[in-house]
Amino acid sequence: MIPYKTIIQIDRSSKQALYIQLTNQFIVLIKKGRLLPNTKLPGSRTLSELIGLHRKTVVACYEELILQGWVESVPQKGTFVNKNIPVIQKQKLGDASRSKKEISTGFSFTIDPILDRAFPQSYEEDFIYINDGVSDGRLAPVNEIAMIYRKLSSKKSIINHLGYGTTYGNGSLRESLVTYLNETRGLNITKDNIVITRGSQMGMYLAAQLLISNNEYIIIGETNYSSSDTTFEFSGGKLLRVAVDENGLDTNAIEKLCEKYPVKAIYTTPHHHHPTTVTMSAERRIHILNLAKIYNLAIIEDDYDYDFHYSHAPILPLASHDKNGNVIYVGSVCKAVAPVYRVGYLIAPKNFVDECAKMRRFIDRQGDAVLELTFANFIKSGSLDRHLKKVVKIYKNRRDLFCKLLRNELEGYLSFEIPRGGMAIWATLNKKYSWSTVSKIAKKQKLVIPEWQRYDMGEINHNAIRIGFAAYNETEIYEFVKRLKKTLEIVKGYENN
Amino acid sequence: MIPYKTIIQIDRSSKQALYIQLTNQFIVLIKKGRLLPNTKLPGSRTLSELIGLHRKTVVACYEELILQGWVESVPQKGTFVNKNIPVIQKQKLGDASRSKKEISTGFSFTIDPILDRAFPQSYEEDFIYINDGVSDGRLAPVNEIAMIYRKLSSKKSIINHLGYGTTYGNGSLRESLVTYLNETRGLNITKDNIVITRGSQMGMYLAAQLLISNNEYIIIGETNYSSSDTTFEFSGGKLLRVAVDENGLDTNAIEKLCEKYPVKAIYTTPHHHHPTTVTMSAERRIHILNLAKIYNLAIIEDDYDYDFHYSHAPILPLASHDKNGNVIYVGSVCKAVAPVYRVGYLIAPKNFVDECAKMRRFIDRQGDAVLELTFANFIKSGSLDRHLKKVVKIYKNRRDLFCKLLRNELEGYLSFEIPRGGMAIWATLNKKYSWSTVSKIAKKQKLVIPEWQRYDMGEINHNAIRIGFAAYNETEIYEFVKRLKKTLEIVKGYENN
Repeated sequence: MIPYKTIIQIDRSSKQALYIQLTNQFIVLIKKGRLLPNTKLPGSRTLSELIGLHRKTVVACYEELILQGWVESVPQKGTFVNKNIPVIQKQKLGDASRSKKEISTGFSFTIDPILDRAFPQSYEEDFIYINDGVSDGRLAPVNEIAMIYRKLSSKKSIINHLGYGTTYGNGSLRESLVTYLNETRGLNITKDNIVITRGSQMGMYLAAQLLISNNEYIIIGETNYSSSDTTFEFSGGKLLRVAVDENGLDTNAIEKLCEKYPVKAIYTTPHHHHPTTVTMSAERRIHILNLAKIYNLAIIEDDYDYDFHYSHAPILPLASHDKNGNVIYVGSVCKAVAPVYRVGYLIAPKNFVDECAKMRRFIDRQGDAVLELTFANFIKSGSLDRHLKKVVKIYKNRRDLFCKLLRNELEGYLSFEIPRGGMAIWATLNKKYSWSTVSKIAKKQKLVIPEWQRYDMGEINHNAIRIGFAAYNETEIYEFVKRLKKTLEIVKGYENN
Repeated sequence: MIPYKTIIQIDRSSKQALYIQLTNQFIVLIKKGRLLPNTKLPGSRTLSELIGLHRKTVVACYEELILQGWVESVPQKGTFVNKNIPVIQKQKLGDASRSKKEISTGFSFTIDPILDRAFPQSYEEDFIYINDGVSDGRLAPVNEIAMIYRKLSSKKSIINHLGYGTTYGNGSLRESLVTYLNETRGLNITKDNIVITRGSQMGMYLAAQLLISNNEYIIIGETNYSSSDTTFEFSGGKLLRVAVDENGLDTNAIEKLCEKYPVKAIYTTPHHHHPTTVTMSAERRIHILNLAKIYNLAIIEDDYDYDFHYSHAPILPLASHDKNGNVIYVGSVCKAVAPVYRVGYLIAPKNFVDECAKMRRFIDRQGDAVLELTFANFIKSGSLDRHLKKVVKIYKNRRDLFCKLLRNELEGYLSFEIPRGGMAIWATLNKKYSWSTVSKIAKKQKLVIPEWQRYDMGEINHNAIRIGFAAYNETEIYEFVKRLKKTLEIVKGYENN
C-alpha cells in the first residue's frame, strides 16, 4: 500500500468540498501511475482512519471515482483501479523539471508576422506618451452612462435583453443611430442598412473578411491607418498604394490601378485622412464615387473623426452621396465618448448588412445588449449631442494652444498644417533628424514616442508622425512641448558635433 | 438662374444649423448637375432676399462651400461652381425610381452558404420555444452586476480603464479567473495563460483562425455543436467526423484518422458532449491526451457547462491533465450568469495566448474593461459562487421534474437518459415519427421546435434533438409537456390513419 497518510493533503480552508479534494488527489495518483490498473484501494474505514477524514467523505470520494470511471467496485472484493486506464505517456523532461518551465504548445501554428504589428505598449507614471489622436478619458461621461446602465438594469423589461439575441445589434440602438446619422451625416438609411459592431475596427474586420480573400486587391493610401493595412492583409488581401496629397487620396492614380488590376475595394478616411489629417476635396469625392460605380468597387469609408471639426462644418461622408450601393460606412461612438465602450456600426446596402450579421454570429455570437440599450438612451436623450458640444469646444482650445506653442517653440524642427478638426496633427520632422534618434533621446526626457514606424508602412520616408493633442490638458501641453523641445535641442547638439 | 426659392427648403425646426442645411442643398445641386461647373452663384444679398435667410447665413454657406472645394471665389467677379467638378455618373434607373427601391451593393461579394447556418429566429408571445439548453434570464443577477458597474464607474480610478488598453483583457479579471479556474477546475495556470474573450464563441473563433487554414483537418463528433462546425469551416478547415457513444468521442476512431490524415486539431466538449450530453470516460480522456501528444494535435476543449452538475462532482477538464501544451481550453461566464454579458476566456500555453491577443487587436480592438472589472469584482467577492449554488439547486429541481414528466407522459414517443448536469436533455424521437412533422404540428400548439436540423449536420439520422429545461419554471414545464404531448398524440393519429 502506498503511503496515503503522507501523500494525501487535505486543505480544510479551501472552498472545495473535502470529498472532491480527495477524489482529485486519487485521480492524480492514477494518472501518474502511482496507482496502477487493478490496484486495490484501501477499504473506506481503513483510509478514513489513515488520513483522518470522516468515513462518509471517503465513501463519497469512492462513489465519485466510480462515476467518473477511474475505479471499479467489485462486489465482495473491494474497490480497484479501472483495468482499462491506459498508462499516461511519460514526458521527455519529467514532470518536476517540466512544470517549472514555461510550457509551449504541443501543436504547431503559424506565428503570423502580419499580426506582429499590434505594437503592444506598457505605461509608466510620470512619462508623457505621444498618442495618435485619442480623446481625453477625464472628460468621458462615464458616470452618466453608468447611471443609465444601472437604471435600465433595474427595469423589469431588461429580462428580454439578457439572453441570446439578434446579431444585428439591439433594435433601439439601431433606430437611434439611424435617426442620429441621417440627421448629422446627411445619410438616408433605414434600420435595414445598419449592423451594430464593437467599434469601427470590427466593422472594418467584417468588411475585410467578406470582401477580400486570397490575393484580391485593395487600394489604400501610401500613408494609411496601419490597423487597416493589417486587417486587409490578415484577410489575404494585396495592398495597392496610391499617393496622398493635400486633397486626399490621388484618385487619378486609383483610376490607373483600376484599369490595370481587378481591384475589389478602396479603403479611405476622407473626412480627415489617417494619418495625414487632410480632407478629401469635392472633386475627388465625386471622382472616387464614379470610379466605384464604373469598376464595381466597394469603398470602405472609415469616418473615425466626423464628430470633431473646429473651423468649419463637417464635410458629409461619401456614404451620403452614394446612390449605387458602393460605400460601406464604418464609424463608432468610441472616439466621441471613450474607447472602452466598443459601440460602433457598419452601414451598407441591406444584402451586405445581412451577410455581416450572419458572420458576426461566429465571431462573438452577439453584442452586449445592455450596453447597447444604454447608448440608445444616451443618444436619444440628446446626451451625446451635449457631450460632443462640450468636448469639441475644449479640444478646439487645446488644438489652438498646442499648435501655437509648437510653432513658437519648435520652429525649424517640426512642420505641420493646423488641422481643421480631429485630435491630432501630422508633424514632419526636419530631414536633418530622424524619429528613431529623437525617440531614443525623448525617453530620457520621460517622453515616449511609440510606434513611429507604423506611419510609414509604405516606406516613403516622409519623416512624419501623428501627434495627438486632445488628451492633454493645458498644463500637459506646456509640459509636452517643453520635453519635446529639450529632446530636439539635444538631438541638434549631437548633429552639430 | 435656377429657381432657388422653390428648390431650397430650409427646416427651421431641425437641429442642423441653417447655413449647413443651405450648404448641403448646394452640394446636392452641384452633384446632380443642376449647377454645372463655372455656373455663377447669386450674390449673397440677392440669395438672402430670395430665400428669406439672413445674409450672414448665406455668406457662411458660401465660405463653407469654398472650404469644401465645391465653389471658388473669383475676386471682383463673384462665386462660381468649381470648374474641376466632374459631372456625376447618371444612374441607369434614374434617381427617383431608384431611391424608392432597396439598393443592393454596387460591388460583388460571395454569399457564403456556410454562414447561412446562423438560423435566425424571431419570437412571438404565448409561444413556448424549445431551446438547446439556456439559463433562465429571470434568475440572472443583473441588478447586482449593474450596481457593481455603477459603483466602479464612479471611482476616480476608472479613468485608467477608459482608453485603448491591452488586448489580453483586463488584468484584474485575468487574475480573478486564474484563481477561480485553478480552484474549481484543477487547472494550474498563471496570468500568462489566459486571454479574455467575448464568450467562448470568440475563443473558438480565435483558435480556428490561428490553427486551421485552407483544407486542414479537424476532428469533431458525428453529432457536434453546430456553431463549431461552422466556425471551423469558415476558417477553411475540413471536418472529419467520429462516432459519439455513451462514453463520448470514439478515441479509437480518432487514432485511425490521425494515422491516415495530417490532422491539426480535435474539437471536443468532454464534460457533457454537445449535443448528446454524454460525459467522456476516464479511459478516453487519457487516450485523447496521449493521441494529442503523439500526433501534435491541438485539442480545443469547449467546457460550456462545467458549472452545472447535479448528481456528482464535476469531472475535471482535459486541460487540468494536460502537461504537454496540447489543450486550448475555452469557456465563459455567459451560461452561468446571462448570455448578454459576453465574458469568456481562452486558456493555452503562453505562446498561443500571445498570438490570440495579437489577433484580437484586429477583430474588435479590445474588450470592455468596465464590464470586465465588474466581473472581476463579482467573482472575487464570491458572488459568482453564491449565484451558481443558487441556480444549480433550481436547475436540478427543474431537471428532475422535467424528466419525470417526460417519462410519465411521453413514453413510447421520446427516449432519453437523465443528464447528470447541464441544461438540456438529448431526446430521441421514436423512429415512427420525424421532427419535421412534429415541428409542423407543434406550431399549432404554440410550441416551436426551431433548428432541429442542426443536430444532425453529419446526417446520421439519429432522430434526436436537444431540449433545454433550465429556462422553464415549474408552471412552464407542465405547460411544455402538455403541448408536446398533444402534438405527439396528433402526429400519432396521422400515422394511424
